[in-house]
Amino acid sequence: MNTPGTYVIGMDFGTLSARALLVETASGHIVGHTVSDYQHGVMDTELPDGSVLGPDWALQDPGDYLQALQLTIRRLMEETGVDPDLVVGIALACTASTVLPTTSDGTPLCFLEEFRSHPHAYAKLWKHHAAEPQAERLNHMAVDRDEAFVRRYGGKTSCEWLFPKLMQLYEEAPHLYARTKGFWEAGDWITMMLSGNARRSSCAAGYKGLWHPEAGYPSPAFFASLYPAWEHVVEQKLGGDIQKIGGQAGTLTPQMAQRTGLNPGIAVGVATIDAHAAMPAMGITEPGHLLMIMGTSTCHLLLHHQQVLLPGIAGVVKDGMIPGYWGYEAGQAAVGDLFQWLVDHFTPLSYWNQAHSRGISMYDLLGEKAACLQVGESGLLALDWWNGNRSVLMDAQLSGLILGLNLQTRAEDIYRSLIEATAFGTQMIIDNFAEHHMPIHTVSACGGIAEKSDVLLQIYADVTGRTLHATSSVHTVAFGAAVWAAVAAGSGRGGYDTVHEAVRYMVKPDTTAVRPSMEHHRLYQELYGEYLRLHDYLGRGSNQVMKTLKRLAQSHKKGERAR
Amino acid sequence: MNTPGTYVIGMDFGTLSARALLVETASGHIVGHTVSDYQHGVMDTELPDGSVLGPDWALQDPGDYLQALQLTIRRLMEETGVDPDLVVGIALACTASTVLPTTSDGTPLCFLEEFRSHPHAYAKLWKHHAAEPQAERLNHMAVDRDEAFVRRYGGKTSCEWLFPKLMQLYEEAPHLYARTKGFWEAGDWITMMLSGNARRSSCAAGYKGLWHPEAGYPSPAFFASLYPAWEHVVEQKLGGDIQKIGGQAGTLTPQMAQRTGLNPGIAVGVATIDAHAAMPAMGITEPGHLLMIMGTSTCHLLLHHQQVLLPGIAGVVKDGMIPGYWGYEAGQAAVGDLFQWLVDHFTPLSYWNQAHSRGISMYDLLGEKAACLQVGESGLLALDWWNGNRSVLMDAQLSGLILGLNLQTRAEDIYRSLIEATAFGTQMIIDNFAEHHMPIHTVSACGGIAEKSDVLLQIYADVTGRTLHATSSVHTVAFGAAVWAAVAAGSGRGGYDTVHEAVRYMVKPDTTAVRPSMEHHRLYQELYGEYLRLHDYLGRGSNQVMKTLKRLAQSHKKGERAR
Repeated sequence: MNTPGTYVIGMDFGTLSARALLVETASGHIVGHTVSDYQHGVMDTELPDGSVLGPDWALQDPGDYLQALQLTIRRLMEETGVDPDLVVGIALACTASTVLPTTSDGTPLCFLEEFRSHPHAYAKLWKHHAAEPQAERLNHMAVDRDEAFVRRYGGKTSCEWLFPKLMQLYEEAPHLYARTKGFWEAGDWITMMLSGNARRSSCAAGYKGLWHPEAGYPSPAFFASLYPAWEHVVEQKLGGDIQKIGGQAGTLTPQMAQRTGLNPGIAVGVATIDAHAAMPAMGITEPGHLLMIMGTSTCHLLLHHQQVLLPGIAGVVKDGMIPGYWGYEAGQAAVGDLFQWLVDHFTPLSYWNQAHSRGISMYDLLGEKAACLQVGESGLLALDWWNGNRSVLMDAQLSGLILGLNLQTRAEDIYRSLIEATAFGTQMIIDNFAEHHMPIHTVSACGGIAEKSDVLLQIYADVTGRTLHATSSVHTVAFGAAVWAAVAAGSGRGGYDTVHEAVRYMVKPDTTAVRPSMEHHRLYQELYGEYLRLHDYLGRGSNQVMKTLKRLAQSHKKGERAR
Repeated sequence: MNTPGTYVIGMDFGTLSARALLVETASGHIVGHTVSDYQHGVMDTELPDGSVLGPDWALQDPGDYLQALQLTIRRLMEETGVDPDLVVGIALACTASTVLPTTSDGTPLCFLEEFRSHPHAYAKLWKHHAAEPQAERLNHMAVDRDEAFVRRYGGKTSCEWLFPKLMQLYEEAPHLYARTKGFWEAGDWITMMLSGNARRSSCAAGYKGLWHPEAGYPSPAFFASLYPAWEHVVEQKLGGDIQKIGGQAGTLTPQMAQRTGLNPGIAVGVATIDAHAAMPAMGITEPGHLLMIMGTSTCHLLLHHQQVLLPGIAGVVKDGMIPGYWGYEAGQAAVGDLFQWLVDHFTPLSYWNQAHSRGISMYDLLGEKAACLQVGESGLLALDWWNGNRSVLMDAQLSGLILGLNLQTRAEDIYRSLIEATAFGTQMIIDNFAEHHMPIHTVSACGGIAEKSDVLLQIYADVTGRTLHATSSVHTVAFGAAVWAAVAAGSGRGGYDTVHEAVRYMVKPDTTAVRPSMEHHRLYQELYGEYLRLHDYLGRGSNQVMKTLKRLAQSHKKGERAR
């Protein structure tokens, strides 16, 4: 097969695998797609040599990224038969904040023989949560000093982000910290491997690195307040220019061209955070359109003309999603995680037998049973704070609640109430935007959960009273990266000069419209009122029981408990 | 074997089987015990001929009682080899309110060929809940008319009791109601079969029949307010004298002597409610000693010198437990039921595999895991209202709550939090008595749950800060009946003239003392404070969410929902 016109490659570096798409630049048609699992997956108990990791650690081997990159692109080109001369650009999206320490030439410390057995030499995955004490220290100091930057992140930054992970490296492995000449987001590092240029994406820097296009990073004085030796940490560890997304990080190096089978010199786009790449892929380039990326957690993205400081925002970054706009990120800390908790630990033997004998998954079985329930029939109301609350309240010390239990309560009742609770949480996020004069006209959904659960989408539509535009495509993130690759190539090479133009030609939303039942919506309004009352009572300080319980539990060092 | 002295027989007519004990009157030594399952067990979906029962029905065939009576006593005498001439009395305890309609000679209507297929002709078991609408009507009318009797029952009577079941018979099967010349507690009916005399126990009449030794039954005017035709319902349907417990209902008839192999003319004691028979069996004949009978629900019994009207009391009856005292009954609506709910519907496959491979029950596995947790380590707090609240709040519209959930929460965490919640509920009951000048000096426990769960007993001891005197005997109720048989026989026949005397000689408490850890108790004091705050917030009207949810759920006729 030999297709006319030009092509771009979009890549999605996920938690367990990398995906590559070959896309026709003119039409957005996906010509081929390949996936490759990482050889070492997520290392959360030990390194390949048996070195043991502490609780809450989660590492990756950056060598896996390069291997997956090579395998997916080579297979993509072979399977499609497209002439490499027609491929004009490549860009990638990646999990974030996944960060790794390198030497001055960008070699990961874990590639050095002397550090192969050292956990701190590897990439700390987004869900590495062992830097929580450092994050607390950073937040405490930022609030104490009344630092302006912390207000852009809803008053609190996360242990998943870049600086707590760098702090952990500094505190726990000072000799590795001393050898670290660059501390990179994995997406930026892979991009650097492709282009040979040290560039950082404004998207990851803004959402995960506390960076602001005008204010820059937090001040040397702030870093010095953390550790005296950190006054110049930015210059010492975070070198490389920060580039707007949509920009060109450089061109493909001859060495990388040889590894992938592509031509040297093609455009390499600036990396984006995986969730944020879904924005152009879903055709969103203007304010008023909320995008939910629904996975283990849900991330809510929205564009706006100006900067507004409102509660419950995980980040607001100029040019962070679409150039020219402020990109707002809100979120819910436990969504897919919550359902998996139920499926893994609270579904009975008889249901497993039913699912097995019918050859369906437990999710399908619970979804089917939950779909048979009427609004309110479960008698349950839940607060979806299993992982704390990241929406509006921004309080990690909150916990989950189920109310209304009786002896007839079954797993599907709880499943439905958990879905409803997360939908109420989304409604709160929508209301919060609206109260701050950021009205929402459409709601779109993508991600693993949106792909798979019809009952969930219907409940979200019924709760919010809005039509949901949901995609079941698994390519969304990689497709977004392909759009950015086309923009990086520019019209001169057969791409586009703006993301608006690229989206206009390349994106043909492949979404299903899930319409609300207004009768259900009215019933849900009453339940939402009850949710709000409990939300405020337990979340805003009238009753501190959740914090008391967490304090008692933490005094037992739950993390070290044998299961 | 031929033992000197005299013997008595105590029987326990339970939900699924009857148990008989042969006890040496002088020493209380149990010489033998036998059990016989009821042929028809509990009929809750259909009659033997296939006649379908509605939701919440639960029936028994009184023929099963007679068959079990005959089998257990014959086997008891055979196995022990004791000479029937030495057996001086028999008495029984029975579930209540389990009630059946009979002809004027005491023949159950279900024994008549014409009514064999009619559900209303059978005995309605204590847990038959289909008379809920009738109970609501009765309560509503009693409160409206400000009837004094309802205050003795904590302001509300239960659908499990005699009158709602008789109302259901009247409303749904008027032709059977017309043929009913006696409506009997099963315990009184079996006693009548033994003695040939129509006698009712003050225990069942007081706790389940709204009867009071001075006030009698509710007034004709009250019954007429329910149905005009009911003005004389007591005379028409509830004939027979009411006798104090400890009394003699009569002597064994020649016909029954022949069936059982006992001698005619031996003393037949007045029946008691099964739970209440545990009182003398545990050696309790004075105020200040709380007895918990822990099964699917828990029943808390206490004696006092006078009548006090306090909230949360299911019944206060003069001479209802021990002659000369007012007997107080409080309770928790879901205890064993709650644990079974968790085990049946919310334990994962991997735990069943563990339990199976180790050859232990799921209760044992969960108990083992829960015992490894420290106080507060689960991070959870529950309100134990799965079946509504019968303690202090007396509100069936309340429901259960679990708070503090996170992604690390496992079944044993919930199991422990449910045990703790029921222990907090018991602490509330103790506090409630104390506030009304009924101090509690010792706490004893018996029943299926107390027999089996060490971790539960320890948590109860730690929560209450009291030593628990628990028995693991399965004979407690039947032994209590034997004590009453000895009192019925009287000293003239080798028995005793008072229950105090009988208890002094016959009862050698076979209890284990479970002592509290005061360190745990201090931690639980903090958790109990949190329990109280939630209890009052959700139970006393600040937030009506549980009622709103129940109303919504009931509008879907949950009872008819296919599972």
